[in-house]
Amino acid sequence: MDTNQQKAVILLSGGLDSTTCLAIAKQQGYRCYPLSFDYGQRNHAELNAIRNIAQTLGAEEHRIFNLPLAQFGGSALTDTAIEVPDYRDTDDIPVTYVPARNTIFLSIALGWAEILGARDIFIGASAVDYSGYPDCRPDYFASFQHMADLATKAGIEGRNFQIHTPLLDLSKADTIRQGIALGVDYALTVSCYQANSDGQACGRCDSCYLRKQGFAQAKVADPTRYVATIATS
Amino acid sequence: MDTNQQKAVILLSGGLDSTTCLAIAKQQGYRCYPLSFDYGQRNHAELNAIRNIAQTLGAEEHRIFNLPLAQFGGSALTDTAIEVPDYRDTDDIPVTYVPARNTIFLSIALGWAEILGARDIFIGASAVDYSGYPDCRPDYFASFQHMADLATKAGIEGRNFQIHTPLLDLSKADTIRQGIALGVDYALTVSCYQANSDGQACGRCDSCYLRKQGFAQAKVADPTRYVATIATS
Repeated sequence: MDTNQQKAVILLSGGLDSTTCLAIAKQQGYRCYPLSFDYGQRNHAELNAIRNIAQTLGAEEHRIFNLPLAQFGGSALTDTAIEVPDYRDTDDIPVTYVPARNTIFLSIALGWAEILGARDIFIGASAVDYSGYPDCRPDYFASFQHMADLATKAGIEGRNFQIHTPLLDLSKADTIRQGIALGVDYALTVSCYQANSDGQACGRCDSCYLRKQGFAQAKVADPTRYVATIATS
Repeated sequence: MDTNQQKAVILLSGGLDSTTCLAIAKQQGYRCYPLSFDYGQRNHAELNAIRNIAQTLGAEEHRIFNLPLAQFGGSALTDTAIEVPDYRDTDDIPVTYVPARNTIFLSIALGWAEILGARDIFIGASAVDYSGYPDCRPDYFASFQHMADLATKAGIEGRNFQIHTPLLDLSKADTIRQGIALGVDYALTVSCYQANSDGQACGRCDSCYLRKQGFAQAKVADPTRYVATIATS
C-alpha cells in the first residue's frame, strides 16, 4: 500500500453511477473509502452487492452507515406507503425525491473524511439525466463545498475539501462507456428503486428506464437481471 | 391548535442552550418540532430528560433520530477510547469536536423540515463561548442557509429556508437570563459531556464549566445536580 496516495471518500449506492465513480477515483490514484447508507430501503441482496463492489474495486475500507430516514417518510424511496411510480418523461420532481438526501449523505461523508484526513469526496451525480433532483445540480455542489470549508477544523486550517462530481456532464451511455474502459463489471451493480430480494430489477421505475436506455445507447450488452421487460426508446 | 402558525424544526440536545432556543422559537409563535440525536453517547437519563423538555415546552412532535456516529470515532463525544478532558482555557479546537456535527444535524433537520413544510430551523449555537468549534460561527451558518436553498425542492421553488441562531451573540449568562424570563426550568436540562446514568453532571468538562460560570454570572441559582464541584472564576 502506497501511503503517499491521498485518501478519498466515495459515496457508493451500488448502482451504475456510483460504481463508475468509485472506479474513476481509483483510476485517479486515490486510496478509496466507499461510504454506503442503509436507510431502510435495502434488502440483503443489495447490501451484499454493495459489499462485493467495494471489495472488487479494491476499497481500503468500506462503511455501511445506518440512517433511519424512513422515520420521516415523505418519499417513495423511504416510505412504503408511497408507491414507486413507473417511468414517465417529465420535468417534475418525482415522488422518489428524498428531501435533502445528498446533503445528508455528503455531510456524513464530510465527517468521515475529516476523521480519515481525507480532503476529497466523490459523488456519482449526473446533471444530464438527474431525474429532476435539485441536489444533483452543479450550483448545489459548489455551495456544499464552500460550506464544508467553513464547517470543519480541516477547512479553517486551510486543508480545503473538494467535492468531485466526475459524472456530472456525462450521459448514462457515456458513464457506461467510461466504466467499461475502466473494467467495471456492471453485472455487480443494482440501480433499481425496488429490486426484489434476489437483486432483480423491476424494469419499470425511472432508474431502470435510464439504465436500460444507457446500455442501449452505449451499444453495450445490458447485464441487468430484470423481473419484467420494457421497451427502450 | 392554530394551524396558521408556521412550523419550525428546533435542534434539541437537552442542554441549556438548545432548551432556551426551543423556548425562544415557541415564544416567537412557531409550532415547534424538536429534533434530537442519539449518536451513541446518551444514557437513558439524558434521553428521558430530552423527552421531558420537549413535552414541557409544548412541542407539536418530537423526534429522536438514531445516528451511529460512534462507528467513525474521532471525538471524545463519540469514541469511548478518547477521554473527555477537564476544562482548560485555550483557543485550540478541543477533542470533544465532532467532525461536521452541526452540518450533519442541520442536514437531517433540513430533510425533516422539507417534509413537514417548515422553512425555519433553529439551532442554539453560541459564538461567544463556542468552545472553538468551527461549525458554530456566523459565516458557517450563512453558508449552510445558502446551500439549503440550492439543495431542496422547496428552495428552488422559492420557499427559502432560514437558519435561526438566536443565541449566537449571547453569553451563557445572557442566555440563562433570557430563558428564565421565558419560564425555562433549567433543572430539566443536562449540559454535561459525560453525565452519569442518574443524569448527574461531572462538573469538570468544558460544558459543565461554561454552564456553571453562566449561572454565577447571571446571578441565578444553579439547579444542576453535580457529582463533583469546581470553583468558578
